[in-house]
Amino acid sequence: MGVVGSSVARILKNNQELIAARAGCNIIIKKGVVRNISKVRDIFDFPITNEVESILEDPEIDIVVELAGGIKEPFEIAKKALYNSKAFITANKAMLAYHRYDLQKIAGDLPIGFEASVAGGIPIIKALRDGLGANHILSICGIINGTCNYILTQMKECGVSFEEALKEAQKLGYAESDPSFDIGGFDAAHKLLILASIAYGIDAKPEDILIEGITNITQEDIEFAKEFGYNLKLLGIAKKDKESVELRIHPTFLPQQAMIGKVDGVMNAISVVGDSVGETLFYGAGAGGDATASAVISDIIEIARTKSSPMLGFKTSIEKNLKLKPIAEIQSAYYLRIIVLDKPGVLAQITTILGEEEISIDTFLQRKSNNKNCSVLLLSTHICTESKIQTALEKINNLEITQEKPIMIRIEKN
Amino acid sequence: MGVVGSSVARILKNNQELIAARAGCNIIIKKGVVRNISKVRDIFDFPITNEVESILEDPEIDIVVELAGGIKEPFEIAKKALYNSKAFITANKAMLAYHRYDLQKIAGDLPIGFEASVAGGIPIIKALRDGLGANHILSICGIINGTCNYILTQMKECGVSFEEALKEAQKLGYAESDPSFDIGGFDAAHKLLILASIAYGIDAKPEDILIEGITNITQEDIEFAKEFGYNLKLLGIAKKDKESVELRIHPTFLPQQAMIGKVDGVMNAISVVGDSVGETLFYGAGAGGDATASAVISDIIEIARTKSSPMLGFKTSIEKNLKLKPIAEIQSAYYLRIIVLDKPGVLAQITTILGEEEISIDTFLQRKSNNKNCSVLLLSTHICTESKIQTALEKINNLEITQEKPIMIRIEKN
Repeated sequence: MGVVGSSVARILKNNQELIAARAGCNIIIKKGVVRNISKVRDIFDFPITNEVESILEDPEIDIVVELAGGIKEPFEIAKKALYNSKAFITANKAMLAYHRYDLQKIAGDLPIGFEASVAGGIPIIKALRDGLGANHILSICGIINGTCNYILTQMKECGVSFEEALKEAQKLGYAESDPSFDIGGFDAAHKLLILASIAYGIDAKPEDILIEGITNITQEDIEFAKEFGYNLKLLGIAKKDKESVELRIHPTFLPQQAMIGKVDGVMNAISVVGDSVGETLFYGAGAGGDATASAVISDIIEIARTKSSPMLGFKTSIEKNLKLKPIAEIQSAYYLRIIVLDKPGVLAQITTILGEEEISIDTFLQRKSNNKNCSVLLLSTHICTESKIQTALEKINNLEITQEKPIMIRIEKN
Repeated sequence: MGVVGSSVARILKNNQELIAARAGCNIIIKKGVVRNISKVRDIFDFPITNEVESILEDPEIDIVVELAGGIKEPFEIAKKALYNSKAFITANKAMLAYHRYDLQKIAGDLPIGFEASVAGGIPIIKALRDGLGANHILSICGIINGTCNYILTQMKECGVSFEEALKEAQKLGYAESDPSFDIGGFDAAHKLLILASIAYGIDAKPEDILIEGITNITQEDIEFAKEFGYNLKLLGIAKKDKESVELRIHPTFLPQQAMIGKVDGVMNAISVVGDSVGETLFYGAGAGGDATASAVISDIIEIARTKSSPMLGFKTSIEKNLKLKPIAEIQSAYYLRIIVLDKPGVLAQITTILGEEEISIDTFLQRKSNNKNCSVLLLSTHICTESKIQTALEKINNLEITQEKPIMIRIEKN
């Protein structure tokens, strides 16, 4: 019941009705485990113990969720859970990097969920296993370490050194006080090995593959990238040819048009190329309690569901009482293109109409039209309702100075 | 057995072993249907009929896959398939836009697959239904019509008019000869309604929602976007507030840093914001026989699978005989950063070493170093093996003129 465990508990409670509709049954937390029972804050509405055995041996518990970290101890927990016929869910990439094939063997027909072990909330495990199941996977390229992506983005955008970017990342909580596991590429290696198992069934350990981190990167390398049209990213790469799979983690120059190179900041993304589907890309938050919990709970739902999940994903209705919003009530910022006669007082007439509808202008551009007697007004508004902008458009269209039906395009700011 | 149907048949055959491993059983096509039996080329190794009833009534058939188009006739086929206890798979977004709730009701516990109905090969249905199942969906923003995205991208990148871009799209097969269904936003509306059903359980028909196409867009609008830092995209938008959901299709200005605005050409992408996971984005090919077939087959696999799908997605091994490639054999293009003493003959020494290892130079930059007696050499190579570049790096490092350990970064061109 650390950061991710607490998020799982809170989301299961807050989104209880929705999750029950999707799972087809209620999900109830029977018990939580902590290492140090004296430190537990009184925020959980279920019992907390420091004795993991009491969970592993409880016949009323169907699913054991392991969010502890480490390798040896969690593997023992997993084995005991499976021996006791419980489904097992883990976010533990280090344990899986060494024991995923052991676990698959021990599990037999018992489900094991590990969506949270790679790229936080991005459902990349399910995508590889289910959504892209028809495909021979030709390659996987992943930005699967947010710390490194944040540092490289800062170096590019702010011109700072690796050391400065790392300090900033530590201050913001994006990097550990000992960052070597992230910036050395080892965290990304664990995740790549998990993805490669699903795509290729290939068994390899971290020691077997090429792992380079980002500690040697300088501003000179960033400038080279800008000069020659590259983005520089720490990538996990898996590629298949006829006889072999290459697995490697290293800083990589990518052509500027490559979609994955456009992923900046702490965000993660995985590009998967399949022989049928071509390139697909999956993007989202790679860390954080809630994003990781989202993945853990998706595994819980999958395990809890009966075989035939209903077509739209829920049997009882979800989001009860939710109505379709009438078009007139939709809110947006707007852009208007208005062609008017080029004479005095024209702008006043337009702005008066906008004022009447309480629409305020954000930006404004005026240009000569191809028709010499006319001007093109390009303006954007702050947020207002669809009904107000439609009324204003009709009024503007009815002005004598207006030469063509005005064009409106919506602006989405969030 | 049109374009998508033929792709499904071909992929099921070519990737037979892989698909059987993932599904846990062999997938066999019992029969195919065409409208005009005289037109059938002799390329299928299963019987072809023009009598759909012979499929709907065949007790040996477990799954009916409908890839026909239209609304009324496919809906009748779906109903008969379900009445006869067959699973049903469709790529038919128009039929689903009108009958998805009817089908869910009729189906009961029979599975219905429709991954191919939205955004081709992108597994967005499964992502919303399964991967993001823990989340209240706050918003969905989708580029879900490749024709429109191609036209808008051409207008932005080549400065051409809407009409010119449309003609180009038609020439390349990205737009129909009657393009009104795509450029009017109706195709995107069907897809948005399907996504909104899964996210919100909201029932609405195309007639109920705001639909605007891209026919009015001019170069002036594109220039406004460039001037004020926007990208212009045709978006399908679903947004939830406390009481209502808004559903709308229209051209939209997006801030340049928004990930979805960076999606160009015929590609599709859907940004989904969940209350736990934050923003996720799913990107890929939205159309094409093989990409759509990839989605259809993912539904077939899901239906064929026994309840407990094995941890890594397959029971028997996949990609047999595939070995981990030794690091020394990995191929890449490389970037080298070398600090050398600034004196005559330096470059000759470096290039001689690269020549000995048969490494050819692609680009080259020389800079003054902060240390006045030194130069920084930044160069990139064409593709060679890891073992050759490592040998070259060692030789360069051993040169007397080399002042620091040379830095190598890999360049990924594909």
